[in-house]
Amino acid sequence: MTLAVSETVRALGNRSEEMIRALAEITETEGQITRLFLSPEHKRAAALVSDWMEQAGLTVSHDAIGTVCGILPANRSSSNKTLLIGSHIDTVINAGAYDGPFGVVAGILAVSEIQKRGIELPFALEVLAFGDEEGVRFPSTLLSSSAVAGVAKPEDLEATDADGIRLCDALKDFGGDPAATAKAARDPDSVLGYLEVHIEQGPVLEAERLSVGIVTSIAGANRYRVTLSGMAGHAGTVPMHLRSDALVGAAELICAINQIAHEANDHGVVATVGELSVEPGAVNVIPAEVVLSLDLRAATDEPRHEAARAIKQAADKIAAKHGLSVGFEQYHEVSTCLCADRFQNTAEKAIKSLGLRPLRLMSGAGHDGQAMSQLTDIGMMFVRCQGGISHNPLEYVEPHDMGLAVEALVRWIETIAEEERAKS
Amino acid sequence: MTLAVSETVRALGNRSEEMIRALAEITETEGQITRLFLSPEHKRAAALVSDWMEQAGLTVSHDAIGTVCGILPANRSSSNKTLLIGSHIDTVINAGAYDGPFGVVAGILAVSEIQKRGIELPFALEVLAFGDEEGVRFPSTLLSSSAVAGVAKPEDLEATDADGIRLCDALKDFGGDPAATAKAARDPDSVLGYLEVHIEQGPVLEAERLSVGIVTSIAGANRYRVTLSGMAGHAGTVPMHLRSDALVGAAELICAINQIAHEANDHGVVATVGELSVEPGAVNVIPAEVVLSLDLRAATDEPRHEAARAIKQAADKIAAKHGLSVGFEQYHEVSTCLCADRFQNTAEKAIKSLGLRPLRLMSGAGHDGQAMSQLTDIGMMFVRCQGGISHNPLEYVEPHDMGLAVEALVRWIETIAEEERAKS
Repeated sequence: MTLAVSETVRALGNRSEEMIRALAEITETEGQITRLFLSPEHKRAAALVSDWMEQAGLTVSHDAIGTVCGILPANRSSSNKTLLIGSHIDTVINAGAYDGPFGVVAGILAVSEIQKRGIELPFALEVLAFGDEEGVRFPSTLLSSSAVAGVAKPEDLEATDADGIRLCDALKDFGGDPAATAKAARDPDSVLGYLEVHIEQGPVLEAERLSVGIVTSIAGANRYRVTLSGMAGHAGTVPMHLRSDALVGAAELICAINQIAHEANDHGVVATVGELSVEPGAVNVIPAEVVLSLDLRAATDEPRHEAARAIKQAADKIAAKHGLSVGFEQYHEVSTCLCADRFQNTAEKAIKSLGLRPLRLMSGAGHDGQAMSQLTDIGMMFVRCQGGISHNPLEYVEPHDMGLAVEALVRWIETIAEEERAKS
Repeated sequence: MTLAVSETVRALGNRSEEMIRALAEITETEGQITRLFLSPEHKRAAALVSDWMEQAGLTVSHDAIGTVCGILPANRSSSNKTLLIGSHIDTVINAGAYDGPFGVVAGILAVSEIQKRGIELPFALEVLAFGDEEGVRFPSTLLSSSAVAGVAKPEDLEATDADGIRLCDALKDFGGDPAATAKAARDPDSVLGYLEVHIEQGPVLEAERLSVGIVTSIAGANRYRVTLSGMAGHAGTVPMHLRSDALVGAAELICAINQIAHEANDHGVVATVGELSVEPGAVNVIPAEVVLSLDLRAATDEPRHEAARAIKQAADKIAAKHGLSVGFEQYHEVSTCLCADRFQNTAEKAIKSLGLRPLRLMSGAGHDGQAMSQLTDIGMMFVRCQGGISHNPLEYVEPHDMGLAVEALVRWIETIAEEERAKS
């Protein structure tokens, strides 16, 4: 990096931090950051984002579902397509400041830089600030981006929050238009693609000592409820060889799951047993039944299915060995969402041009890109976050890393523009 | 067995079953068997036992703590010692019919047989029906036998039940004498030993296809609360090699515990993890902390201590491997209570004389013998129970097995008498 670039990165990082702090002050609960979808705080955050977009020279509108949309028309209309850049401004309860907001801030700052630097693009740019990524207030998730992608389910508007408030009524209060949400959908032919910058929410970039990384896919996931049933017995009177201890079987299964996921590491397989309950659950009674959760993700679908098969086989073996019965109930499945090769490759060029190593990694968490991939090709860039901690007040991103991410986004857009120009 | 013995065994089994049924009808809750210490039902059961003892020719008294005592003086007083035979008539809530009562029934029937058969003994016999073996109503356990052994703690009389009733007040209502409980203690010099017949409450005799067995010891036990602490994380975003998953560590520890207990099988080591809780316990969060219980028992003390050491070493290794911290908090320890060799050997002779294989096994459950061992040598015989099930309405003992156990007890007492006579 030249000294000039280094100065620019510092300035972009500091400005990012200021904007993040300003958004963080808009919260339902003093001392925390809580900004749920369609809440008055979401509305105030949307207004602040609108102001920033206008200051950045964008033409601002709010769609029917409450998404803030800021358009920068193409300078020379060699294409009538728009490159979308987005993320979300809703948060979980007692959230961190960066998850979501930084992607919106990065988009606004990048568009601002592109204009300042006089970069001409053969497509329009549009920054989107979505409102329902976290899915905390209503049973829906990704409703804002799904509306833009044209895949929102009308019945989601009838969902109610914990206070019995219907989503459509909250949307009216917010200033949206429940009757017109279908109009938020974009014509696929009008869209060039969707880019998103997001904090990693994991420890990989930190472990690799990298500020940014290229997302290969948003992991698909299977979730299972696994039940192992054995025979209760007195902890003192039943010798080891006469036991059918459900927890011993569950322990062997957890070890097998861990082993299978480690062996499939190259495919980004991660497997987690996060919940486990024991019946009857007394110090002096051999466990009769264990129910555990299994969350299984991978960078692509086949290794995930392969891991699921291996885990089920291991469970059958363990059950036979201990005289247990075992059952898997799948209650959730999302397919892998691949990031487009062309956006991965252009991101790599942009990151390399900054003198950084272009690490590719999967996203284990869900993102608006999953909905947007049903409209258009998507690309994602991750920014390092401290300790991989997210959904937590301790969430932290270095301003320098944010500055680099904004600069990388500017160059990413430039690189895509070069490719588009080369095509025509 | 001759036809005559076989007939006797059948008759003793049938009579045992009748007596067990009669006691089972005395319950606090219709349709269940619940007979807590010092309850009106305990009093009714004690009265029934007194009647049976009188019918069997015993001189009956009730000691200050409510134990029913039935004495058969020695025919020819070559010794002024008494051989005690006992068990308990209190039960857990929703109990089986045999746990405790059968030992009292066996004692009464054996003494009755000894008189019928004109067997002369060089010692007195005394059958004891204790009242506080299960320790359900009050915080105390084994209070009746502890009083006889002279090791009861006076402060236990001040304990209260769930309704706030003091043990000493319940004892007065029962007909006991809280001020005189010390008088229940026997002079060790007056006692030859203590024998008890009890249902196994485990599956060993059933697996070995044996009606009765000889108890080598009442297992000592250690109980620990084990805490493994790691690092919470997002189930999707933290790769396997960057995790410190407390539940994976706990699973490996449970496997190690199971392995260590299996390898120490010859020493009767049994180890049980019966309780396990996971924090934060969400499907998509890597477990940060696991707390589990460990119940560790063995036929003798040293193998139990050795297993505890091996388990702690394994835990340290597992913790180091996964970047966890681990702590063991011991909150309970009872030493092994050995059955006297002379009573094991005489029991073996008695069982062999019935043409049965004299299997020796440990008791994993606690018994009145633990208290009585502080007064005198103890001996225990186990009777097979179906499926090893106990503390459960499904508890069941075949009348034939009960008949054999009573016959074995008669012969055990005869064999002890022969030994005593040989000594003098």
